[in-house]
Amino acid sequence: METLAKKLNGFSLEGISNTVSAIQQNPEIAKFELRAKNKWITGGHNRSNIQGFYGACQEDTSRVVPFVYDNDEPPILLGENKGANPAEVILHGLLGCMTTSMMLLASAHGIEVSSVSSSVEADFDLQGFLGLDPSIEKGSQQIRVEFEVEGVTEEQKQELLSLAKQSPVYNTILNPTDVRVEIK
Amino acid sequence: METLAKKLNGFSLEGISNTVSAIQQNPEIAKFELRAKNKWITGGHNRSNIQGFYGACQEDTSRVVPFVYDNDEPPILLGENKGANPAEVILHGLLGCMTTSMMLLASAHGIEVSSVSSSVEADFDLQGFLGLDPSIEKGSQQIRVEFEVEGVTEEQKQELLSLAKQSPVYNTILNPTDVRVEIK
Repeated sequence: METLAKKLNGFSLEGISNTVSAIQQNPEIAKFELRAKNKWITGGHNRSNIQGFYGACQEDTSRVVPFVYDNDEPPILLGENKGANPAEVILHGLLGCMTTSMMLLASAHGIEVSSVSSSVEADFDLQGFLGLDPSIEKGSQQIRVEFEVEGVTEEQKQELLSLAKQSPVYNTILNPTDVRVEIK
Repeated sequence: METLAKKLNGFSLEGISNTVSAIQQNPEIAKFELRAKNKWITGGHNRSNIQGFYGACQEDTSRVVPFVYDNDEPPILLGENKGANPAEVILHGLLGCMTTSMMLLASAHGIEVSSVSSSVEADFDLQGFLGLDPSIEKGSQQIRVEFEVEGVTEEQKQELLSLAKQSPVYNTILNPTDVRVEIK
């Protein structure tokens, strides 16, 4: 007997509904611990490895090899462009998470979308980082995200906007987050 | 006549001191607008392009081709592991920025470091994202960063820790950030 796995926007509708049901039955399934490791190379160049994580009550083993990503700085920030700048990296994660959140939840709500593209701009003032002016934020002063979505009504666009704002990364950046740092 | 560009931890000391002097003379130089663009592919798979930015009073043209990075999800989150998960991506950016901040400022302070590695764990509860329990944060509940540094004294380690906390990405995640989102 053949089972047709119905997909919407590339997401398995059965997959979404099974995940939600499983979490409703056992909320422990919803808890994830995501991880990364990093090694400094020289100057502004360093490299991250991302592989395992804990989620759905188990250690994930789906990644045979780690994802390896480099951070570096452009020459004007004393680097050699061997990777994007780490602040650009979080913009990449922000757009990705908002897009995936929007599309997964749109699929759960039965909204089909034909295309999504997005862009982001983030303001930083290095006087904050360098400690030259204590009144200036060390973090980003403002981040502006713009989505362009095709194949939906104006009303659906507003719904998609609110779904994108469910994004874990968006909320991690928008709201204060408990970040603990140790050195040894 | 030969000029020996003195480096510490891979950073040009002249480069650091020229940057700081230039900003002190004209604070406009410190203002940066970083950017990313993203295109949804299917399901949890999307792709970012990172190339230009504005900084030091000019558009940067140092990158001949864009950095191209994919976001995806592991199978347990309904994806196909074509890239790290976007929340893992921001952990990569967080470690990278804290490391670069630490090492650039350590160089300015004359601290030589022989090696730096770091790891991070971040807790997320998908009940927040899925809207199943409004009392649960949609963003990360806690992020734990650990640095391991070699070649310095215990006292210098504590100084390095405070330098790492100058990081723009750390502060963007730690503190509330003004994130504006539009859809069209």
